[in-house]
Amino acid sequence: MKKLINSPDTLLAESLAGFGAVHADIVNVNLDPMFVTRKDAPRAGKVALISGGGTGHEPMHAGFVGMGMLDAACPGQVFTSPTPDQMIAAMEAVDGGAGILLIVKNYAGDVMNFEMAAEMASGPVETVLTNDDEAVEESTHSQGRRGVAATVIVEKIVGAAAERGGDLASLKALGDAVNAASGTMGVALTSCTVPAAGLPTFTLAEDEMEMGIGIHGEPGRRRVAMMTASAIAEEIVGAIVDDVKLASGEEVLLLVNGMGGTPLLELYGLYDAAARVAKGHGLTITRSLVGNYCTSLEMAGASITLTRLDAERTALWDAPVRTAAFHWG
Amino acid sequence: MKKLINSPDTLLAESLAGFGAVHADIVNVNLDPMFVTRKDAPRAGKVALISGGGTGHEPMHAGFVGMGMLDAACPGQVFTSPTPDQMIAAMEAVDGGAGILLIVKNYAGDVMNFEMAAEMASGPVETVLTNDDEAVEESTHSQGRRGVAATVIVEKIVGAAAERGGDLASLKALGDAVNAASGTMGVALTSCTVPAAGLPTFTLAEDEMEMGIGIHGEPGRRRVAMMTASAIAEEIVGAIVDDVKLASGEEVLLLVNGMGGTPLLELYGLYDAAARVAKGHGLTITRSLVGNYCTSLEMAGASITLTRLDAERTALWDAPVRTAAFHWG
Repeated sequence: MKKLINSPDTLLAESLAGFGAVHADIVNVNLDPMFVTRKDAPRAGKVALISGGGTGHEPMHAGFVGMGMLDAACPGQVFTSPTPDQMIAAMEAVDGGAGILLIVKNYAGDVMNFEMAAEMASGPVETVLTNDDEAVEESTHSQGRRGVAATVIVEKIVGAAAERGGDLASLKALGDAVNAASGTMGVALTSCTVPAAGLPTFTLAEDEMEMGIGIHGEPGRRRVAMMTASAIAEEIVGAIVDDVKLASGEEVLLLVNGMGGTPLLELYGLYDAAARVAKGHGLTITRSLVGNYCTSLEMAGASITLTRLDAERTALWDAPVRTAAFHWG
Repeated sequence: MKKLINSPDTLLAESLAGFGAVHADIVNVNLDPMFVTRKDAPRAGKVALISGGGTGHEPMHAGFVGMGMLDAACPGQVFTSPTPDQMIAAMEAVDGGAGILLIVKNYAGDVMNFEMAAEMASGPVETVLTNDDEAVEESTHSQGRRGVAATVIVEKIVGAAAERGGDLASLKALGDAVNAASGTMGVALTSCTVPAAGLPTFTLAEDEMEMGIGIHGEPGRRRVAMMTASAIAEEIVGAIVDDVKLASGEEVLLLVNGMGGTPLLELYGLYDAAARVAKGHGLTITRSLVGNYCTSLEMAGASITLTRLDAERTALWDAPVRTAAFHWG
């Protein structure tokens, strides 16, 4: 294993310390227990948004903490759920008295630990569970579909609504609706290597890729011979259009998300292919995002996400945001 | 070779088309000849800043086109200089009548082609040549030092000064000064694969890395056994401090730049190590940047850059910018 680290044991703390130093204008980093909060938390009267999950998907979620998005993020060890004590400490740090909304990707460990933390909270807590992955109905890491890159979109849109003063029930409903309006599927060209494991999670032959890969290297739909960008886009966009029931004439957000080891050069090329297919289905792409947002360490590959937009969601997407990974408006 | 592409022959045009669609609010993309301009160019009375070079280093340079940074970028084929006709077309598209400043990384092909284009320009043209790479004094791709990640910092600072109305001579002097105040060195853990070549540019053993790597995979100082993040930071920061003659008490910008295939988790950890070493030399880090800015396709590795700051450079770094890769202020 070759990585730019000192040791797998110290990597997470050192990386978080670096993150906190670089983005000291936006976040506070707490190392014991580990959680990241927006600098100006708690915000009195605002519903606090908290997410989290295993490390290795950066910039998700710590890179999304800040004005207009998350109030706190709880990073676990690599590909390992954070623990309830981290979540409880984060809740206490950002609770503004208007309730707490947890945004949780659908993985067994995350779901269980966030549930435990929610039960121990003193105030009202709601949870939005993201499960946008079209690849598999059941996975090795989850009951039901996995939560993947649409989580980024849910966190942006719900974060903007919370910033505008939305109440807990309406934010929970909005998050559920955006999740239901979204579908994602990804491909892997190479495996990643979990630092503490030291070996690739899986192997692919030189002419093989995995269609429907999970963001921890979990199996997808099938192993296939390498496909062109256009063929990949056709299969993935088609699957999402069918499942989310996107109809000709509808407006969508198109996200092409890198898994970590694929250059922007390829991601923009894949976007071009995906946009062509989406337009072929009669969709109008009114918002776009291309880059590495929901990653799987250094895995080569990408996912494509489509989210049905409407006027409210579009305005919330465009609303001001100030985090390490997103800054606009 | 496994890449998310249709064909090496169409990759650049498809990727630029995707880039243009995603960032249609910021840039115009011209495909024949290939160049990218800021949406509101030409700006009458403003010195136009143009950069360019081989593709494969994204987001550099097209991702830096926009308000507060570049007026145009000319992308060549992968790791290949753009041609003078691209540069001339870009110059004509963005010339605001106040002169043109070319920012050119020191590689033989880029230098020759930008010189030819400058000679054919009708108005005044100056050139800032970046050569911040501490690794080697002469390289396989350049006479003298190579231009690498400090180019990002030069383009941001000079871009802000141009936006404020600086004249051609003062911008040229500022660019030269920022380049001279900067040093960079990088390491590679893996090679990248140029799409048209189909095979890795070089090979490294499972326990080996290249210290002083070039951004096209050119050799650096030496092949060594894998080093820890702290040992890498100590060697690189030490070399820069010596060469740039950074003295205790001085203020610096610290950039930890990913080569494309190294996750943010590791880059922030390397930042933590580099910051520790810089502080050990008595330096005060007043500005920071961590991410993939001057890349080498999917190469695993990173570079560290230090730039001496002063009040003017700091204010220009902080000045508003609206490009695909940078958005603040």
